[in-house]
Amino acid sequence: MLKDLDLSVSLDKEQYKERLDELTIQIGQLQRQAREAGLPILVAFEGWEASGKGTQINRLLQTLDPRGYSVHVANPSEEDKWYPYWKRFWVRAPAKGRITVFDRGWCLEAIDCLYREKPDEKGFERACREINAFERQLADDGTLVLKFFLHIGRKEQKKRFDALGENENTAWKVSREDRRQNDQYKQWRDAVQAMVERTDTESARWHFVPSEDRRYATIAVLSQFAEAVSRALQDRVAAAARAASTKKAGQGDAPKDLAPDKGAARTPASELTRNAILSQVDLSLSLTKDDYAGSLSHWQDRVRDMEHAMYRERVPLMVLYEGWDAAGKGGNIRRLTSPMDPRGYDVYPIAAPNEVERAHHYLWRFWHTVPKAGHLSILDRTWYGRVLVERVEGFCTPEEWRRAYREINELEEELTESGVSLVKFWLHIDREEQLKRFEERQAVPWKQWKITEEDWRNREKWDQYEAAVDEMLFRTSTSYAPWTVVEANDKRYARIKALRTVAERMAERIDF
Amino acid sequence: MLKDLDLSVSLDKEQYKERLDELTIQIGQLQRQAREAGLPILVAFEGWEASGKGTQINRLLQTLDPRGYSVHVANPSEEDKWYPYWKRFWVRAPAKGRITVFDRGWCLEAIDCLYREKPDEKGFERACREINAFERQLADDGTLVLKFFLHIGRKEQKKRFDALGENENTAWKVSREDRRQNDQYKQWRDAVQAMVERTDTESARWHFVPSEDRRYATIAVLSQFAEAVSRALQDRVAAAARAASTKKAGQGDAPKDLAPDKGAARTPASELTRNAILSQVDLSLSLTKDDYAGSLSHWQDRVRDMEHAMYRERVPLMVLYEGWDAAGKGGNIRRLTSPMDPRGYDVYPIAAPNEVERAHHYLWRFWHTVPKAGHLSILDRTWYGRVLVERVEGFCTPEEWRRAYREINELEEELTESGVSLVKFWLHIDREEQLKRFEERQAVPWKQWKITEEDWRNREKWDQYEAAVDEMLFRTSTSYAPWTVVEANDKRYARIKALRTVAERMAERIDF
Repeated sequence: MLKDLDLSVSLDKEQYKERLDELTIQIGQLQRQAREAGLPILVAFEGWEASGKGTQINRLLQTLDPRGYSVHVANPSEEDKWYPYWKRFWVRAPAKGRITVFDRGWCLEAIDCLYREKPDEKGFERACREINAFERQLADDGTLVLKFFLHIGRKEQKKRFDALGENENTAWKVSREDRRQNDQYKQWRDAVQAMVERTDTESARWHFVPSEDRRYATIAVLSQFAEAVSRALQDRVAAAARAASTKKAGQGDAPKDLAPDKGAARTPASELTRNAILSQVDLSLSLTKDDYAGSLSHWQDRVRDMEHAMYRERVPLMVLYEGWDAAGKGGNIRRLTSPMDPRGYDVYPIAAPNEVERAHHYLWRFWHTVPKAGHLSILDRTWYGRVLVERVEGFCTPEEWRRAYREINELEEELTESGVSLVKFWLHIDREEQLKRFEERQAVPWKQWKITEEDWRNREKWDQYEAAVDEMLFRTSTSYAPWTVVEANDKRYARIKALRTVAERMAERIDF
Repeated sequence: MLKDLDLSVSLDKEQYKERLDELTIQIGQLQRQAREAGLPILVAFEGWEASGKGTQINRLLQTLDPRGYSVHVANPSEEDKWYPYWKRFWVRAPAKGRITVFDRGWCLEAIDCLYREKPDEKGFERACREINAFERQLADDGTLVLKFFLHIGRKEQKKRFDALGENENTAWKVSREDRRQNDQYKQWRDAVQAMVERTDTESARWHFVPSEDRRYATIAVLSQFAEAVSRALQDRVAAAARAASTKKAGQGDAPKDLAPDKGAARTPASELTRNAILSQVDLSLSLTKDDYAGSLSHWQDRVRDMEHAMYRERVPLMVLYEGWDAAGKGGNIRRLTSPMDPRGYDVYPIAAPNEVERAHHYLWRFWHTVPKAGHLSILDRTWYGRVLVERVEGFCTPEEWRRAYREINELEEELTESGVSLVKFWLHIDREEQLKRFEERQAVPWKQWKITEEDWRNREKWDQYEAAVDEMLFRTSTSYAPWTVVEANDKRYARIKALRTVAERMAERIDF
């Protein structure tokens, strides 16, 4: 979710210079390869007023051969207004091998539908449908569509407005409308969030750029641009190879002398943007034994009472547990269920799928865990396995796990629309804490069953898992089903936070 | 469009028997192949009350090995009502190699949102979005999703209700709600049409079955089922071959000993359902010279006046001409434009795309023909080339032209939503008339430029073109942009009908 993004990230001059030089060379190379391969690239820069769209567009352009791109302002000209909305975007869509950059994209209208005194929800849905159609049509035809959103905080925006306002040469740049965006920062952000939830698809991903530090923003934009172009080129080569193998030899369109691997980003963008969420987690949070004992009985009493109320009012609830190995999911779940009436809840431990489950869509088995009205389901590991273990261990293809973010969001939206509340926990510990717990498990005889070779193997892939977790937290934290990251280095703190979160979600539903 | 479907089609007993025997053998074979290939098949039967869903489901099942399918009623059980809407569909989704049939599908809720005194448009859009998500998720995972709609006319439905009502053993089958569907036939049909326009996608096609004659309906269902399964199996083989060629040898999942071609339908379903539209065109319609002269000046005057009014009121209009070679598009367009102010309209003759156009999406060049507010664009051939000449001549892939129906509908919805009216003409002549005109062109020296070798070559593919035209007319005649088929064996009749249609559409827009 937009509001979860870490905006404190920055780069110093030296880091910036070094990465910029590398990326400039790399993007130049990628642009030549894209031209040769006939890859059209369409880029939109969206973001807050004063977030630096102009600066970032300029910096991207400086890495490019000017003969290969065109830049357009999305705001309609007087002439544009005489034509249907989509004409100005369609006629400027890039030809094969060319790059089109839009200052503001085609999504602003959707945001505007919600960002007004009386939100126009019908107009919003229509606008999103048209955005999806535009992007899908171009993507199906082979265009790479990239959307950047430059994100800054409310305070930073105000500071920038004030700075512009103080200088009489730039004061005109800040309109009353701009100031209104700052006054109603949260409303605009929520409208953006809703738009993103409808329009972040495999055809056209959103890339969020923390933009308070301009150097960081530049490197983030360039890295993500390079990574996306590089991947699109690789997909082309793979597709052309497939086509060549099914067609008669020589009939495929495989671009010649194209070795996109050479141009692949040395540091993937994910390395830069990962930890956008996890980096903000304060793992020092803890509770004393006394505080814990008091809180535990307080919140367990609440949960007990509310479970009955939920049953009476027929409200269903799902609690999803994800987290690192040894993060304490089992103990946490026990503290949650111990006060409850066992007829009212089910706990589903999710292991590797069995033979019957493997014969179905990966979401199929989870539909069996959806609770009846008035009941609770607690899942120990969940459908998020698709974008965690299955992604990292290669149990599914990259297309499959990339598609899964949208599939999961759709599932969760359907559940919440039907009245099922979702609480999603990521139990977070750090690498050192995990090691300590693993070693303890091995040392204590009655804990040894808890630790396997596989746990140690997974641990070696900590970095890959961390990147996957961070992307998951970002892409699937939605307005209808947000994640709760539970600081779990201290088990007591984690248990109380989970209990309290569940109790609060219950209370929301039954007006307790 | 649903209302354009020819419901008079029927089969005699002998034809029925012969086709049924063939299809039974073929479907048995296909089912075994599908099981071996691990293809899951999900089928929904939707349709009018008393349209014969039970009968047709039974007849399909009789061709199948009962160990391979399950049948479910979509209406929720008491137990189902305690769970989210989608659960009952998801948990019953077929495993690999199995077939699930739903009596009524998952689309009824969307229809119900519109079929009520105060239509719930928001609920409708949400329901359609969820339908799209459900079908896309399963299709992406390899499930073949097939939706049949059994269509009968209002009179036929009433006749069936009355027959049921007269027999005291069956009278209970006709509810008040059923009678209401007959009383409000048009409203329910419009709600179905709106639902179909949102949910007919490449992931899950709608198959419309004229069902007044039960024998015809059975053969249509079985043929379309066989054709779809056969195609899905072929796609699998192709995909597996591609996968095998990119993976190491032996790692692909290509089903062994699978030769779907053997099982391919001898008579494709399209041969049965084609002409569902064109078969109803009365080509004997004509006008005398005198009637023609009077009508011509009347309607040309109207068009002249209204062109000015459209300009004043800033209403844009596009007139699209498609039709057989030598159907008279040129002369027809001349009669339309001759009364108009040339500053108000443009005529775009659409030929094969040039080099610049080929470097873009096929729809790109047409966005350049979209008229300014208050202006007219007249297109001599259109974006429908994608599903006509490009389809028949193989200038695009089957995936591309199949995808195009949705793309074109999306384009036309965007245009009409922006206020551009669309008039779409199919100028229809028969084979004999075309031959007569071709021969005349060759005989008359000053007409010889009009006829080329290509025209003769295209003529040889009349059947293929006819099938393509019929599917186009059906899939792209929408509530917002319906087709007008112009009976053009008589040029005078065709010119007046086109002029009158344009004049009437103009009048609708400007309250003339």
